[in-house]
Amino acid sequence: MTYCVGMNLDDGLVFLSDSRTNAGVDNINTFRKMNVFERPGERVMLLMTSGNLAITQTVVTLLKEQMASHDAKLSLWNVPNMFEAARVVGDAMREVYRRDAEALQHFGVDFSANVVLGGQIFGESPRLFQVYSAGNFIESTEETPYFQIGETKYGKPIIDRVLRPETPLPVAAKCALISMDSTIRSNLSVGLPLDLVVVRTNECKVAIHQKVDAEDPYFRMIRSRWGEALREAFVHLPEPDWQ
Amino acid sequence: MTYCVGMNLDDGLVFLSDSRTNAGVDNINTFRKMNVFERPGERVMLLMTSGNLAITQTVVTLLKEQMASHDAKLSLWNVPNMFEAARVVGDAMREVYRRDAEALQHFGVDFSANVVLGGQIFGESPRLFQVYSAGNFIESTEETPYFQIGETKYGKPIIDRVLRPETPLPVAAKCALISMDSTIRSNLSVGLPLDLVVVRTNECKVAIHQKVDAEDPYFRMIRSRWGEALREAFVHLPEPDWQ
Repeated sequence: MTYCVGMNLDDGLVFLSDSRTNAGVDNINTFRKMNVFERPGERVMLLMTSGNLAITQTVVTLLKEQMASHDAKLSLWNVPNMFEAARVVGDAMREVYRRDAEALQHFGVDFSANVVLGGQIFGESPRLFQVYSAGNFIESTEETPYFQIGETKYGKPIIDRVLRPETPLPVAAKCALISMDSTIRSNLSVGLPLDLVVVRTNECKVAIHQKVDAEDPYFRMIRSRWGEALREAFVHLPEPDWQ
Repeated sequence: MTYCVGMNLDDGLVFLSDSRTNAGVDNINTFRKMNVFERPGERVMLLMTSGNLAITQTVVTLLKEQMASHDAKLSLWNVPNMFEAARVVGDAMREVYRRDAEALQHFGVDFSANVVLGGQIFGESPRLFQVYSAGNFIESTEETPYFQIGETKYGKPIIDRVLRPETPLPVAAKCALISMDSTIRSNLSVGLPLDLVVVRTNECKVAIHQKVDAEDPYFRMIRSRWGEALREAFVHLPEPDWQ
């Protein structure tokens, strides 16, 4: 399983992914799910994946082949805006579907993959998309300035309660890490290390790429103090007096 | 959808269920999911259901027919202990499976139903079970003194963080209501009114059965103050200083 969250805020973009991939709990491996494509000052794109690893790796490989090729009419390097970038990712998903879906079906395996794609191309504002297995996609809005993929439910309540478009980037990063902590505590198949990436509006480059492992002092602080703070808040609420 | 939680604590049992049932978001109805079977001082049993309403209603009806019949060898009224009660519920589930599963399959409908069954029969300690669609079941333990059915994930983190076997009953009820609040906020298809039932150890009867609707002052307090407390705890954690 996987947990990734991307946030689109007034000040920029925040991305957080875990790195655990599993095929049953006795076969757990670590793969990076955060892909960074960057030409500083001109364009920056972050792509996070969840679902069947064989599918998502092939999608990313196709995208990289297009980017490396001089003949590719459209690739993430030459699309004029982020909407077209989302279409390129969706088309890559459909290409992999055409190759693999039937063979997978013979083994009872669903064609399942999800992508969060965000970034900024100079001249536009930063944008954030979620691309589905079918290659279609949606864009974030003021009302819902974030997307989650993978094991999304445990970590959703805290985001819904605190995230707004005007939330500053460090506060949003804190929110993403607390959301990840709640997910890791409740689901064995989501795990460290994490990749946290921050992009500031109009810089068109990665401002921060922090790899967070079990020794990271800030994440250790979050893990211990958030649980404590929750328990304290809980204790301070009165009990019901129904008799 | 549904959210129900049952807790087995040193001081007794706590049960909380919502009452919303839906077949698509344009067809949402209210059905009670909390069934109370009680002969005060001798036995008390609570049964909460999730899944396909046609299945769970039939299971409950079968159980009631057995209880009303003078010929039934085994019913919830005459089983000698709660383990046998769980078997009676599992057998009723299998009976409905034999009748309905094939017809449901023709319509692509999974045979899906889950039951939380808890209670006390005089002479035993209070016990808590989860019965699956297949009629098999598990019992709660010291390490996991609760079961959830339905839309379980949003409301799980707070239970994992605060519930222990020694938690007093009013505190456990508060925990169940906060867990329900997180679920209702994140999932449209879980809704008020709620049924909250408390059974005290060795009383073998319902101590409290509170119907909680949108006007309930305690639940209103929980809804507003828990969100506030979370946001305050969030604000008080420092932000990362990665640069």
